[in-house]
Amino acid sequence: MKKVYLTGITTTGTPHLGNYAGAIKPAIEASKRADTENYYFLADLHALIKSQEPASVAQSRIEIAAAWLALGLDADKAVFYRQSDIPEIPALTWLLTCVTAKGLMNRAHAYKAVVQANEQAEDQDPDRGINMGLYSYPVLMAADILMFKAHVIPVGRDQIQHIEMARDIAQRFNHHYGEHFVLPEAQVDDSAAVLAGLDGRKMSKSYNNTIPLFVPEKQLRKLIMRIKTNSQEPGEPKEPDGNTLFEIFRAFATPEQTAEYRREFEQGIAWGTAKQTLFELLNSVLSEPRERYLELLEEPAKIESILQQGAERAREQSSVFLAQLYKSVGLSSFS
Amino acid sequence: MKKVYLTGITTTGTPHLGNYAGAIKPAIEASKRADTENYYFLADLHALIKSQEPASVAQSRIEIAAAWLALGLDADKAVFYRQSDIPEIPALTWLLTCVTAKGLMNRAHAYKAVVQANEQAEDQDPDRGINMGLYSYPVLMAADILMFKAHVIPVGRDQIQHIEMARDIAQRFNHHYGEHFVLPEAQVDDSAAVLAGLDGRKMSKSYNNTIPLFVPEKQLRKLIMRIKTNSQEPGEPKEPDGNTLFEIFRAFATPEQTAEYRREFEQGIAWGTAKQTLFELLNSVLSEPRERYLELLEEPAKIESILQQGAERAREQSSVFLAQLYKSVGLSSFS
Repeated sequence: MKKVYLTGITTTGTPHLGNYAGAIKPAIEASKRADTENYYFLADLHALIKSQEPASVAQSRIEIAAAWLALGLDADKAVFYRQSDIPEIPALTWLLTCVTAKGLMNRAHAYKAVVQANEQAEDQDPDRGINMGLYSYPVLMAADILMFKAHVIPVGRDQIQHIEMARDIAQRFNHHYGEHFVLPEAQVDDSAAVLAGLDGRKMSKSYNNTIPLFVPEKQLRKLIMRIKTNSQEPGEPKEPDGNTLFEIFRAFATPEQTAEYRREFEQGIAWGTAKQTLFELLNSVLSEPRERYLELLEEPAKIESILQQGAERAREQSSVFLAQLYKSVGLSSFS
Repeated sequence: MKKVYLTGITTTGTPHLGNYAGAIKPAIEASKRADTENYYFLADLHALIKSQEPASVAQSRIEIAAAWLALGLDADKAVFYRQSDIPEIPALTWLLTCVTAKGLMNRAHAYKAVVQANEQAEDQDPDRGINMGLYSYPVLMAADILMFKAHVIPVGRDQIQHIEMARDIAQRFNHHYGEHFVLPEAQVDDSAAVLAGLDGRKMSKSYNNTIPLFVPEKQLRKLIMRIKTNSQEPGEPKEPDGNTLFEIFRAFATPEQTAEYRREFEQGIAWGTAKQTLFELLNSVLSEPRERYLELLEEPAKIESILQQGAERAREQSSVFLAQLYKSVGLSSFS
């Protein structure tokens, strides 16, 4: 039996180098393996938690869709869809909501972090500024995963808790209603690249420190030149591992190129030169995808049709499975 | 423009006298008025919060559906459907979830009551035993109401807060995304019958004190004989208003019959006789519906087909409206 892999990217912001290295690249590679089945989706219902600006949500959706395709996703080798095109997902979310202990949500890191910030600000209400989407999104995420009986969810360390919650919710449902759900497992690949951003922290939309994948050449160079480095002088040997420039380079280069870049670090390359080398590599790797990306953005109907086909394939599974789940909880047709 | 009325009954337990007097009877009457449009539904997604017994949820759904029809609902005069047949409802629930402040849910009476009970029991965790369904169902209820642009929701006093929450949620959505939702109003008809049950408290599934509408004659008599009365002797004048027997009688009788029963109370009718009179009235009023009810339960395919037609009519509204709402939040087709 094939292992089912599932990956979603929240559609806020513009696709950046970190998305590629951390999610898109390993996912595209996995989709080429014969022993896996792959579900990749645009988590656009999740986007509504963070963004209440329709135009920017809409823009991000199409950009992220175009990025996957431009970077080489073969939509025949993976089920590629928008979350919002699968009406069975919110329906399953409600079924799961009814077996999820509120206490479980209270322990979610993302929620607790905001509560803590409110408490430190001596705010009267620890729940200030928290919407129910932020509070209950682990249930939606569980529905995303459980709907397609995913075995493996490749995630960063910060996401492990969500997979554990999905397991917990699945187990409670199975306990009440029979063994319907596969228990998913988080796959944390520590060798997978978690890129740092302009300021040295993890590259993330939340930190506003990202380098977009498909900015024009000039702007790409400018951004790379802005990456924070330390004050080591030219000629001083530099530690490549963990260095922002080096890690970005490694995520896009061949092993040979990486070995050469490593040597240059050890031989004391100047930061300016290191940045120029990184820029040249990225620009050469990304120029073709960038062209395809810009072409795709000019053909929204083409992207739409690919996603519609993906939704159709996804719904072959989700509509049959949801009917079975509805039946299991007592909600079936009378005849 | 017609006023839109909306009423749902949670499908747990067997339909009882209180359901009829408080919801079904006024709803059927309203559906005959030419100036209203009526949405009546089986709240079977809500049922999952309270009951995790599939067989009993399934039984309750068909019994409550059959009860509406047996009691005279003309499915051509109202849109009569099961909540679970409308996939747009959970989808809308998620959109609303993202604009609902968690603080709003913290203030819900039903949730607060359980927290208080936990705290009084000196329980470590105030959220003990609370599932996310109980916590977040006001959002689902808002979706039920807002989806069909209902103007008027006939409710008991204990439900007013939920309608206020639906208004609050609708206002926040409208504020962010434009004026999509009609703000619903609670209609509390204090003259509408809130029947007491066997023990004198409000007749309710939660108190296990109900008199089912369609038990066999003998059992109906037995239950009525069990209704708690005070120790007033035969011959002592008795207060009819607020009396359990009298209020049930009034909900099912003509004004003339009620006036006569009132006189008997004032003239000191014995409780046993009063119960016998009540039994005879109920039995005569309910015997025909009871026959239809039992016939309908033998024809589940007939009920199914009526509900499917209702779902189709409901979805004419909900599918178009949801597409509009998705678009408004930034989730529309690319082409």
